[in-house]
Amino acid sequence: MNKIKTIAFDADDTLWVNEPLFRINEEKFDNLLKNYISYDKITSKLYETEVKNLKHFGYGIKGFIISMMETAIELTNGEIKGCDLKKIIDWGKEQINHPVNVLDDVTDVLESLNTKYKLMIITKGDLFDQESKIARSGLADFFDIIEIVSEKDEKTYSSLLKKHNINPDELLMIGNSLKSDILPLVNIGAKAIHIPFHTTWVHEEVNPKSLDNPKHLTLKKIKSVLDILDI
Amino acid sequence: MNKIKTIAFDADDTLWVNEPLFRINEEKFDNLLKNYISYDKITSKLYETEVKNLKHFGYGIKGFIISMMETAIELTNGEIKGCDLKKIIDWGKEQINHPVNVLDDVTDVLESLNTKYKLMIITKGDLFDQESKIARSGLADFFDIIEIVSEKDEKTYSSLLKKHNINPDELLMIGNSLKSDILPLVNIGAKAIHIPFHTTWVHEEVNPKSLDNPKHLTLKKIKSVLDILDI
Repeated sequence: MNKIKTIAFDADDTLWVNEPLFRINEEKFDNLLKNYISYDKITSKLYETEVKNLKHFGYGIKGFIISMMETAIELTNGEIKGCDLKKIIDWGKEQINHPVNVLDDVTDVLESLNTKYKLMIITKGDLFDQESKIARSGLADFFDIIEIVSEKDEKTYSSLLKKHNINPDELLMIGNSLKSDILPLVNIGAKAIHIPFHTTWVHEEVNPKSLDNPKHLTLKKIKSVLDILDI
Repeated sequence: MNKIKTIAFDADDTLWVNEPLFRINEEKFDNLLKNYISYDKITSKLYETEVKNLKHFGYGIKGFIISMMETAIELTNGEIKGCDLKKIIDWGKEQINHPVNVLDDVTDVLESLNTKYKLMIITKGDLFDQESKIARSGLADFFDIIEIVSEKDEKTYSSLLKKHNINPDELLMIGNSLKSDILPLVNIGAKAIHIPFHTTWVHEEVNPKSLDNPKHLTLKKIKSVLDILDI
């Protein structure tokens, strides 16, 4: 790790809590639709709609709200009441405005690293929502570069590195998603540290085969990054 | 204009058609709700919901879809049928996937300017949707810098200029919205050319008083930019 000059962090579920807020609304959604139908795959159907809608809406809560409404209308054959659909919109707004809960030790880690390294956020999703979360997290001042992207793949990372004149072997990425934060980075020659979060969206899961002979490190806690890097 | 080194273009309704697609869906929405209620202010009510929701959703079609559904539920006291709400979602998807119609002369103008000037796009709205439109427009290669922002105010423009090391008096911005593309720019010392589009969202309208002693130029056609600038 002694060549590293820039450290990039994923944001959702790496710096602050995100995925559990989706799980809470999925559970409310499941309970709501159980008033209409007897079906044990409501959340699977919702996931199917979300993935189908990614090409229209991209990632983020607004697409999630629309997908919940679409699934509710479809599964109830249009019988769902307006007041119940209004509830879905309200849950979505609550999720958007939910306080940003910074994860344990994140502030300490950023404070320790930001004098020696150039720090970046690379986060995927809705521009408006991500900007709002970055501002509300209180962490923005630790970062030299903040990039909000619509997809996290090798192409996106390569163009970000080019844009900011960063050599891949001088970059370390830290994140919770193997698919989005780790594998594309090691594939383009950067270093990556995976810090799993207890909840992962099924869309972010990867084929276990792609993890044979891993080129990345896995740590249980973000604090352990400080044991590995020169600070 | 002889100091100008960088020319920034707004995108929606400056480079390609956008606002009329919202008007088409508003009209469909109005006709749909007329099946339920006798009320002549349906689109005003929709606008009210959209503005109220800007703080949750920001600008863009996804927020527009959710606001249409919310307004439909509210105005019909929840009586709107699921199949009609599904129509609203489908209209939104159609709008997102609508072909990008580049406005007349835009390609010629960009071709004439891009050898002598650094060209930028500065567009406001949904990241995923704007990226998709830029790609589908076929115009991306004319631009040195593409910035998608969540709000177009003096603060945003100042930080963009700082980020790209552009002096305000060396920047010319061209756009259709006085509120978003023109006034904030002249207020920070840049030049601006207003090219009105036949359809403007009421939210983009400005107090006529702010147009006394204008510091910007107004042109009827984007092609006339070539008569003013050195090329």
